[in-house]
Amino acid sequence: MKPIIFALPGNETLTDSLAQSVDAEIGQAEIRSFPDGETYIRVASDVKNRRCILVCSLDRPDSKLLPLYFLSQTIKNLGGRCTCLVAPYLAYMRQDKQFKPGEGVTSKYFAALVSQFARSLITVDPHLHRHPSLAEIYSVPTEIVHAAAHISNWIKSNIDQPVLIGPDSESEQWVAEVARDAGAPFIILEKTRRGDRDVEVSVPQVETYKDHTPVLVDDIISTARTMIETVGHLERAGMKAPVCIGVHAVFAGDAYNELQDAGTKQIVTCNTIPHPSNQIGLEKLYVDFIQNTNFY
Amino acid sequence: MKPIIFALPGNETLTDSLAQSVDAEIGQAEIRSFPDGETYIRVASDVKNRRCILVCSLDRPDSKLLPLYFLSQTIKNLGGRCTCLVAPYLAYMRQDKQFKPGEGVTSKYFAALVSQFARSLITVDPHLHRHPSLAEIYSVPTEIVHAAAHISNWIKSNIDQPVLIGPDSESEQWVAEVARDAGAPFIILEKTRRGDRDVEVSVPQVETYKDHTPVLVDDIISTARTMIETVGHLERAGMKAPVCIGVHAVFAGDAYNELQDAGTKQIVTCNTIPHPSNQIGLEKLYVDFIQNTNFY
Repeated sequence: MKPIIFALPGNETLTDSLAQSVDAEIGQAEIRSFPDGETYIRVASDVKNRRCILVCSLDRPDSKLLPLYFLSQTIKNLGGRCTCLVAPYLAYMRQDKQFKPGEGVTSKYFAALVSQFARSLITVDPHLHRHPSLAEIYSVPTEIVHAAAHISNWIKSNIDQPVLIGPDSESEQWVAEVARDAGAPFIILEKTRRGDRDVEVSVPQVETYKDHTPVLVDDIISTARTMIETVGHLERAGMKAPVCIGVHAVFAGDAYNELQDAGTKQIVTCNTIPHPSNQIGLEKLYVDFIQNTNFY
Repeated sequence: MKPIIFALPGNETLTDSLAQSVDAEIGQAEIRSFPDGETYIRVASDVKNRRCILVCSLDRPDSKLLPLYFLSQTIKNLGGRCTCLVAPYLAYMRQDKQFKPGEGVTSKYFAALVSQFARSLITVDPHLHRHPSLAEIYSVPTEIVHAAAHISNWIKSNIDQPVLIGPDSESEQWVAEVARDAGAPFIILEKTRRGDRDVEVSVPQVETYKDHTPVLVDDIISTARTMIETVGHLERAGMKAPVCIGVHAVFAGDAYNELQDAGTKQIVTCNTIPHPSNQIGLEKLYVDFIQNTNFY
């Protein structure tokens, strides 16, 4: 029998296109707020013994967790066979240790909670730092997929004479990979520190790439500080207005407008968090997970 | 050793006054949002082997649950002896059965979650309907306290010639109790149903109480529809502008202004949910719970 895919509020577009890609049924659920701010939930589809997939990107996670938990619990109570979670963006990956005494290690706490109501989990390029893998914090099976190949393809098809830009040496590995797959050159900005607040940034080989379109790529664009700074360095070096690409369009506060105003040619993101800048669809990355959730 | 009382954001006023009433230490915790909407948490007090009380009213619960869970988990990890919860207002008491097929019974799901991170729970007049007690849904010890005596005292001290008003026969028991303790008379409005949408409401003994101040009392003022309607009935009967008293100041949307504009003399609430209308302090109701949390 076909799996049923349920969209948590805000994830309807991705869910519709996933259901088409994998020939799944779209789950009918009513999820709304009462006037007093509590969540009402009703599952109208017959889920008994069916494989159920929940689609919920976990940016701005605090208000999303209860509706997700309630939907999962309701499906279980109605006899659904699993509640596997497609969470294209995974929250609470940053606080993965006690940096100061007394801090809560929220990455662990959050994972423990989500592991209670997701039978398995798939996500795109999570911000893994000190945790070597999701298995260290999640007690359910998890799968990580990568956006890099889709980004390279988008660059190949949409940008004439691209040159990829790494804002610092840390980004080199990731930028080099995307550049290679896109068949494009790349350069890494060079920083010379003269003092605590005096850092000079130079763009190497700037003459060679004067007619190229610079392309900045990062995993999460949140406050966009690094990207805005990098755009400034390129402008001062006399390069063309760059295209900025992010996997996850978090865009905290007014970051999107600020990045636009900084002198970018275009801002492009993957569709892991619904946003007007979404142009790179990652549906194909979830197909195996959805079709093979029998195992979980 | 003194217990430590921690305020979740928004509960600082009640927490400060509780700490004075019970001679407790106020817990130092930093609970704030990152620009991307995630919650940061750090406990600065030394909680090791100490009794820890968390104060968190649970109106608008969806965005409050993760911070509460994170604080509880952090305290546990730092060796705190208990994380007992003072939740003057308890959420998710309404959906206590499947009214329609497929509905989630959120009262159970919510209770199961809170029971994981509160070692015990105290609340004021929860909206118990079909669940005979909190013990049916909460797996930790719970205690219910009642605001009625505090409301009666407030009426006695603040209103000259009060007459309590019950909007319908269902409210009679509760209104009669508050009236008796306040040493005041009460009347119950009489409804005569003439058709589906044609209900006539009359105010009995209206002549006797023309010079009294009508006092309406309800447990939760959410959309305030019933109270606004009742205020209208009293006005049409030629009574004075009433005082409206609620235990829980939920005030969904613009309900507070609407109730003011409906022709009330004054709106007064208990301090279970922080609101400008709070005038009746319930601190005394929690003292035993806080002082005797050794048991939990």
